[in-house]
Amino acid sequence: DVKPLFVGFNPETLVDYIATKTPDLATRLGGKPTDWKVREVGDGNLNLVFIVEGPQWTCVLKQSLPYVRCVGESWPLTVDRSWFEALALKEEGRLVPQHVPEVYHVDRSRALFVMRYLEPPHIILRKGLIAGHVYPLLADHVSTFLARTLFSTSLLALDTAQHKAAVAKFVVNVELCRLTEQVIFTEPYAQAANNHWTSPQLDAEAAALRSDVPLKVAITALKKKFTEQAEALVHGDLHTGSIMVTDTSTQMIDPEFAFYGPMGFDIGAFLANLILAYYSQDGHATSPGARNDCKYWIAKTIIETWALFAEKFVDLWSKFVSLESPGDLTPTLLFGTGDRTLAEYQKAFLGDLFQDSLGFAGAKIVRRIVGIAHVEDLESIADPDVRASCEKKALAFGKVLLKERSQFESIQQVVKALEPKG
Amino acid sequence: DVKPLFVGFNPETLVDYIATKTPDLATRLGGKPTDWKVREVGDGNLNLVFIVEGPQWTCVLKQSLPYVRCVGESWPLTVDRSWFEALALKEEGRLVPQHVPEVYHVDRSRALFVMRYLEPPHIILRKGLIAGHVYPLLADHVSTFLARTLFSTSLLALDTAQHKAAVAKFVVNVELCRLTEQVIFTEPYAQAANNHWTSPQLDAEAAALRSDVPLKVAITALKKKFTEQAEALVHGDLHTGSIMVTDTSTQMIDPEFAFYGPMGFDIGAFLANLILAYYSQDGHATSPGARNDCKYWIAKTIIETWALFAEKFVDLWSKFVSLESPGDLTPTLLFGTGDRTLAEYQKAFLGDLFQDSLGFAGAKIVRRIVGIAHVEDLESIADPDVRASCEKKALAFGKVLLKERSQFESIQQVVKALEPKG
Ligand SMILES: Nc1ncnc2c1ncn2[C@@H]1O[C@H](COP(=O)(O)OP(=O)(O)O)[C@@H](O)[C@H]1O
Ligand SMILES: Nc1ncnc2c1ncn2[C@@H]1O[C@H](COP(=O)(O)OP(=O)(O)O)[C@@H](O)[C@H]1O
Ligand SMILES: [Mg+2]
Ligand SMILES: [Mg+2]
Ligand SMILES: [Mg+2]
Ligand SMILES: [Mg+2]
Ligand SMILES: [Mg+2]
Repeated sequence: DVKPLFVGFNPETLVDYIATKTPDLATRLGGKPTDWKVREVGDGNLNLVFIVEGPQWTCVLKQSLPYVRCVGESWPLTVDRSWFEALALKEEGRLVPQHVPEVYHVDRSRALFVMRYLEPPHIILRKGLIAGHVYPLLADHVSTFLARTLFSTSLLALDTAQHKAAVAKFVVNVELCRLTEQVIFTEPYAQAANNHWTSPQLDAEAAALRSDVPLKVAITALKKKFTEQAEALVHGDLHTGSIMVTDTSTQMIDPEFAFYGPMGFDIGAFLANLILAYYSQDGHATSPGARNDCKYWIAKTIIETWALFAEKFVDLWSKFVSLESPGDLTPTLLFGTGDRTLAEYQKAFLGDLFQDSLGFAGAKIVRRIVGIAHVEDLESIADPDVRASCEKKALAFGKVLLKERSQFESIQQVVKALEPKG
Repeated sequence: DVKPLFVGFNPETLVDYIATKTPDLATRLGGKPTDWKVREVGDGNLNLVFIVEGPQWTCVLKQSLPYVRCVGESWPLTVDRSWFEALALKEEGRLVPQHVPEVYHVDRSRALFVMRYLEPPHIILRKGLIAGHVYPLLADHVSTFLARTLFSTSLLALDTAQHKAAVAKFVVNVELCRLTEQVIFTEPYAQAANNHWTSPQLDAEAAALRSDVPLKVAITALKKKFTEQAEALVHGDLHTGSIMVTDTSTQMIDPEFAFYGPMGFDIGAFLANLILAYYSQDGHATSPGARNDCKYWIAKTIIETWALFAEKFVDLWSKFVSLESPGDLTPTLLFGTGDRTLAEYQKAFLGDLFQDSLGFAGAKIVRRIVGIAHVEDLESIADPDVRASCEKKALAFGKVLLKERSQFESIQQVVKALEPKG
């Protein structure tokens, strides 16, 4: 059990720490410690994020606080989450270095790590989407991240001894999982003090969630997967606020919720946040139809993300089975070359994963409308009636994904259903 | 990592160990160490089992060898399995003391533990079934064991912090899981040196397994559950050779394969071995129909085991939700009293568990006909043609369970299908 000797930094103590404890980083920053500029930029629900700028170099130091930052000390939360975030960033960085900030230094006892500064014009994807920007490479980049991290940490690539050792390493990140269980899989469907929504516009919808038996059964089935299924190392919080982008770069940050869980949880998180962005566009349009191109692009990106993910995932898998020693789920003895089994099993596997992803996407949408943490895409729509109208559509779609996901046979059908006829 | 200082006992060193290292047990045995009688009785695929008889008391000492006993030193296997066996026996003993031998002493470094001697007339259930005995309380007792151990170690009873801590404790028992993965979920469907079957009678059937694509997909889906899903603490080897019985007592022994896995694996193991016993009866009948009563009783026991399990499991669950704080999968917030959600979710849960159990039962049957380890029920049928005829029926039924399990809506339908019409 790690009980960090916790010291929350301010800019001054932080400079002192870097100067005395991390001489290599001090050298890279250049100049003297008094030359370094420190800014805290955590917009941040949970943690402190400091940008440290030296004459020659800039880096980011992220430190956990022993509580949920946006709530305060009344909601304690293990600072050890920063250790798991750094662990996950390093593992993801090994697999997709082009899409994850490099980690330079980790200090578990001080609940901090130092990583690459994602320099301007990198911005948080969510902000870009709210502003109506489009990112033509987004689906390609995110699908690469998902395919590589999920495939490579699963039993399609690992043997069960490696996999169980990795599961054991992350199973300790239990408090963060419990936070997810509470705010995503429980509270939105119950009377809970943390819940809030645009009221009175959505009062009836919120009440309906609390008496919808099939919906509660559906969310519980997904919670069961989330709490029991160690399928792959998942990021655990892959919304559009955990992605920084430029026109050519896509970087996944903030995997403090990482653990071995169901693959669909990450895929669903990203798809859900695209869907929320989609439904919020009408609320940001300054004239009717002004955001239609953006909506079209988001819809296209939803389709491409899944399609490219599936293609890359199967591609990695097929290469792995024939070139290297495969993971224990698909041993050469059963999935040797020239056997139709691989193609058939891949079809079944991807079909199940598609269903999981839609279900988790539904869960992520619902919680952003009525749960504790909303999304700026919708919150920034000033007119409550306009906002409520966007939120109602999103919520209805989230419920469809939760309860009727088995009816969707393709991602195209999902996108078609974004705008119900009539 | 525990690297036991391994010393395999013989009767002499064993007596010395008990006399010097476990004074309490020495006192209970009574007399002097020279009065104690030691017999090694492991019929045993894997381990040494010593019965230690003193003037006043008798106990059993079980010790692991650093290899698979029935194969020899060429197949090394961690002796640490005895630690997990003792851990599981203690956990099960806490939950169902009436159905598990008490553990008196554990010594991890010597890979041994001491437990209650299951005195005569306790015999191994498999031997009783082969002899044509019936055990009217069997379904009641085994269903109690299954319901209590599986429910109480699942997220229906535990919170996720408790559950993950327990998962972490058993996730280390990886070598034993790997053995199961190899001999149950891989080899029977492939060309593997360990495989054997009644030849030439079953040559065509064995070959068919190796080219049956839907069957390979089905067995891989079950392997996925086995390797990923930490649903509850499972015994891991619950065949009729791991159960000792009298007319009034039923004791589950030998949980060295215990880990957090899918509940259906234990239920399926027991049902599979009843089904194998059922199909072997015709091979033991000394005159046509001589074993019909026994077959009828086995069929009835299959039905009762599932029915009583489901009843007891749901009963525990409903009591738990209303009386105590429920597990994290069914929090009071969502499953509070007077809510139809509980009944609906229980129906869905039990339906899925039924399907899992049938699938794992199928896997267990197939491997006993063509894999490395067969069952005495069938092996003891001397005439190879008679044996092969029983084996063909069992194998065919195992394949039905693997590939068509979703068509069974009740355990009665399953039992009806044991004797296909025509
Ligand atoms: N490596 C980085 N480079 C530049 N800015 C960053 C970096 N990491 C985080 N930030 C900024 O800090 C904010 C909060 O970071 P984040 O990791 O999401 O913290 P939290 O865990 O509190 O949500 C981000 O939204 C982003 O603006
Ligand atoms: N507690 C016990 N009391 C009496 N006999 C036992 C006991 N435990 C095991 N045995 C006998 O030893 C045999 C082998 O034990 P088991 O635990 O199944 O070992 P293995 O792991 O080698 O299969 C059993 O079949 C049974 O006959
Ligand atoms: Mg709001
Ligand atoms: Mg963040
Ligand atoms: Mg975060
Ligand atoms: Mg045994
Ligand atoms: Mg054993």
